[in-house]
Amino acid sequence: MTLQKATNITWHHGAIAKADRERLLNQRGVVIWFTGISGSGKSTLAHAVEEELFERGHLSFVLDGDNIRHGLNKNLGFSPEDREENIRRIGEVANLFAQAGLIAMTAFISPYRADRDNARSLLQKGDFIEVFVKVPLGVAEERDPKGLYKKARAGEIKEFTGISAPYEEPLNPELVIDTSELDLAQSAAKVLNYLQDQGIIDKE
Amino acid sequence: MTLQKATNITWHHGAIAKADRERLLNQRGVVIWFTGISGSGKSTLAHAVEEELFERGHLSFVLDGDNIRHGLNKNLGFSPEDREENIRRIGEVANLFAQAGLIAMTAFISPYRADRDNARSLLQKGDFIEVFVKVPLGVAEERDPKGLYKKARAGEIKEFTGISAPYEEPLNPELVIDTSELDLAQSAAKVLNYLQDQGIIDKE
Repeated sequence: MTLQKATNITWHHGAIAKADRERLLNQRGVVIWFTGISGSGKSTLAHAVEEELFERGHLSFVLDGDNIRHGLNKNLGFSPEDREENIRRIGEVANLFAQAGLIAMTAFISPYRADRDNARSLLQKGDFIEVFVKVPLGVAEERDPKGLYKKARAGEIKEFTGISAPYEEPLNPELVIDTSELDLAQSAAKVLNYLQDQGIIDKE
Repeated sequence: MTLQKATNITWHHGAIAKADRERLLNQRGVVIWFTGISGSGKSTLAHAVEEELFERGHLSFVLDGDNIRHGLNKNLGFSPEDREENIRRIGEVANLFAQAGLIAMTAFISPYRADRDNARSLLQKGDFIEVFVKVPLGVAEERDPKGLYKKARAGEIKEFTGISAPYEEPLNPELVIDTSELDLAQSAAKVLNYLQDQGIIDKE
């Protein structure tokens, strides 16, 4: 629970509303929240979706460790409190992008249900799409693209999700994508089809 | 100075670059940083620019107290450390919006030069436009739209910029707009003209 510390502030809406921006961009502003263990392929999938959306003339933006950990959240570490604050900020920023009309995608392990549900609660129903990027732990550990599992097994990284820290699987995600069964193109197509079916983007 | 706490992270670029998004949106992604004392008209001006940009088919987004203090920065108060962190986060988020191709506008007092310069340093030269929204203190205090000056004079608000806390005027802002001399339409036109002159948007 994050307290509202600031007072002396009032809320009013800008003249240009989310619906105006959506008309301009010919898409709905939403958050696609990719969650899954390290090595599941979240970021790769998000960027593949971004590329396909761009080819179709849509504006999206991926928030992932690359642009968040070095910037907005560079003053956060990996303690439980910092992890929670990390996800909280990402949820808030993703929501701002969605309000701006973009298809915002986040690619973070985000292991806790409560943190993901908080992010969901910021948006209107239907505007938050949780995508569980599912993969057996053994497959992720085999991939180990950054050598992190090896370090975690050696005890060099503490509280590593899946090894020494829990991953709470989504109970009712909008999509489940098993990247050990689907290749990247198939996985991206599944997301794109969902966006079409929900009227977030037009059918091709 | 904010420390980089997180390790185990690497930096790589997504397939879709800023220049691609700029082509899609037919504009350059920039940050317009409005700074000035309370009551100077920063937020009103930013929203007027947003409206005019929208009329011309451009995508912009205003970050101001309304959407930041209740969300991303709701766990920050008004201590010196929290004020610095407030502006730091805003600079980082504005930069993300600019990388996404938007004309991002921020409307915060941001009284310290060092904090504004930090925000500037995140962007390429020419992509950060500091707009000093200048107004005599007496005029701002006369306007007092939220009754804050009255409270500050009564000692009910401590460290109030212009009364009991300093405002460091920009030394080399890209634009200076005195809202006690120009009306809202003239002020907005000055910003729009600058964007045109710099090739950030096309001339009408």
